[in-house]
Amino acid sequence: MGAEENGYFTEENSVDVVISRNTGAKSERLKQIMEVVTRKLHEAVKELEPTQEEWMDAILFLTRTGHTCTDWRQEFILLSDVLGVSMLVDAINNRKPTGASESTVLGPFHVADAPELPMGANICLDHKGEDMVISGRILGTDGRPIANAILDVWQANDEGFYDVQQQGIQPDFNLRGVFRTAEDGRYWFRAVKPRYYPIPDDGPVGQMLGALGRHPYRPAHLHYIIKAEGFETLVTHIFDPDDPYIHSDAVFGVKEGLLAEFRLTEDPARARELGFEGKFWQVEHNFVLAPAKS
Amino acid sequence: MGAEENGYFTEENSVDVVISRNTGAKSERLKQIMEVVTRKLHEAVKELEPTQEEWMDAILFLTRTGHTCTDWRQEFILLSDVLGVSMLVDAINNRKPTGASESTVLGPFHVADAPELPMGANICLDHKGEDMVISGRILGTDGRPIANAILDVWQANDEGFYDVQQQGIQPDFNLRGVFRTAEDGRYWFRAVKPRYYPIPDDGPVGQMLGALGRHPYRPAHLHYIIKAEGFETLVTHIFDPDDPYIHSDAVFGVKEGLLAEFRLTEDPARARELGFEGKFWQVEHNFVLAPAKS
Repeated sequence: MGAEENGYFTEENSVDVVISRNTGAKSERLKQIMEVVTRKLHEAVKELEPTQEEWMDAILFLTRTGHTCTDWRQEFILLSDVLGVSMLVDAINNRKPTGASESTVLGPFHVADAPELPMGANICLDHKGEDMVISGRILGTDGRPIANAILDVWQANDEGFYDVQQQGIQPDFNLRGVFRTAEDGRYWFRAVKPRYYPIPDDGPVGQMLGALGRHPYRPAHLHYIIKAEGFETLVTHIFDPDDPYIHSDAVFGVKEGLLAEFRLTEDPARARELGFEGKFWQVEHNFVLAPAKS
Repeated sequence: MGAEENGYFTEENSVDVVISRNTGAKSERLKQIMEVVTRKLHEAVKELEPTQEEWMDAILFLTRTGHTCTDWRQEFILLSDVLGVSMLVDAINNRKPTGASESTVLGPFHVADAPELPMGANICLDHKGEDMVISGRILGTDGRPIANAILDVWQANDEGFYDVQQQGIQPDFNLRGVFRTAEDGRYWFRAVKPRYYPIPDDGPVGQMLGALGRHPYRPAHLHYIIKAEGFETLVTHIFDPDDPYIHSDAVFGVKEGLLAEFRLTEDPARARELGFEGKFWQVEHNFVLAPAKS
C-alpha cells in the first residue's frame, strides 16, 4: 500500500496524509482553507527544521497571545497587524479601479454612533493641540462631485490617544464627527494635528517586536469611512508625510496615495475666521470613490 | 523610491516590506524564523484570498484555542497534533539510521517517576481487561543486545483511559513501569490489551475535527521511552494493527515499523505460569536503538 492508502505519515508525504482526512468536510471552502493552511505550515516546518524546544516556544507564544485576549483587547489581531497579514487581507478585499482612493485598515478605535455635525465644525472639543483645518472633495472616478456622501472621521489627539482610551480625561466623542456633503461634494472641518502613537506593546506581540528590534509606533493619521449610494464604501486614513514613523508604520498601513500635505500656515485674518489663534495647519485632500459593484 | 526603501506595503511586495523590518533582530535564527513564517503566512493569504469575515473567523478560532489552554490542557499542542505538525517536528528531529526503530510523539500522559519493577511484573494493578504478555529485546543497529537499557512503558486501560485521567478510579501508577535489561537485552512484562481512545474533543480543535468530518480517535498503543548509555533515546509507541483506527490516527502517530503483532493465545499451561485465566494476548517486539551522536 502507498502512504495515502494506509494513512501512515512520513516526512515526505506529510501534507497529502493530513489533507486526505478532510474528504468529509462540511464545505468545499473549508476543505480548501485547511489544505492551504496545512501545506504552508508543513512547508514552514520543513524549511526551518525547528528543534523540539523551538516548537514548544511557538506553542507557548500562541498560548500567551490567546491568554492576552480579553473583551477589550485582541492580541491575535495585533499579531496579524504587525506581520502585515491584516493589510494584505485589506488589500485583497479592496482592489480599487484606477483613480480611486486606496483603502487601509479600520483599526480598533472606530465608534459607531459619533454625532453628525454641520460642515466646518471643530471636532476637537477640549482645544488641546495645534489647530488644523481639513478640506477637500468627495468625487467619483469620473471626477464628478458626490452629493450626500457621509464622511465619518476619527483621530488621536496631540498626545497620541483616542477619546475611548482616555475616558474621563478627554470629552466623549472628542475628535470624532460625521459630515454629509452637498451637491458640490465638498467637506471641511476643524481639528488638531494628530500625533504618532504606539500600538499596545505590553503583551506577547510587543515582546516579539522588541526581540525583532522593531518599534511599536504608527505615524500620525486621521481615519475615514466614506459612504455614498452607488459607490463602494472607502475605509482609509490620511497620513502626515513628515511623521518620524512614516516609513515604518508598525502595522504597514501607509500607502503612497494616502499621504496628505500638512501645511503650517501663518495667516492672521484666516485664523480669525476659523476661530484659531496664531499659526495653524491646513490639509486639502480629495477622496475618489469607486463605483459600487453590481 | 522602491517599496523596500520607502517601506510602503503593497500586495506585491508584502513579504519583503515586512521582513525588511527585522534587521535588528536579537538573533539570526529568530530573523530566519520570522522570515519563513511571514512568507508562508502571506503565501497562504494570497492563495486563499480570505474575506474579512473568514479572516475574523480565523482570529476568533485562535483566540478560543488560546482560551482553552490551562495548566492541565494544551489546546495549541492538540492543534499542532491534528494538523500533523507535531509528527513532522518529531520526524525531523528523529531521523534514524537504517535498521533503528522509528520514533513517534511523546503524548501528554507520561509520568516521570513511575516505579522501577522486576522483569516480568504485571503493570496492570486492578486486573481489569484482557491479559497480555509483552516481550522482546533491546538491540543496537549491529544486532547486539544492549544491557542496562531502561524501558519506560505506559498505556491506556481497556476502556481507553490513562491512570492520570482517572485518579481515584484507577490505582496510582496503573499500567506504568520501568524495566532494566540484563546482558541478554531481553525485556518482558505483563499488562492488559489497551483500547483506542479519543483526544480531548470538547474544545475548538474538536469542533474543527467535526467540521472536517474527522473522528478524534487514536488507535490502541503502548508508549515507550527507551534509554541506554551510548545510544540515542527512543520515544515511541507500538500499535495494534487490527485496531479500527489504525489507518486514521487523529494525530498521525502510526508508522509501518511501529505495528506489533498482538496474538490471541490459548495455552492453559502457559497461562497458569503467567497467573492468567483463559486466553491471553502475546506481543513480541524488538527495539533497535541508534548509536548516540558524538
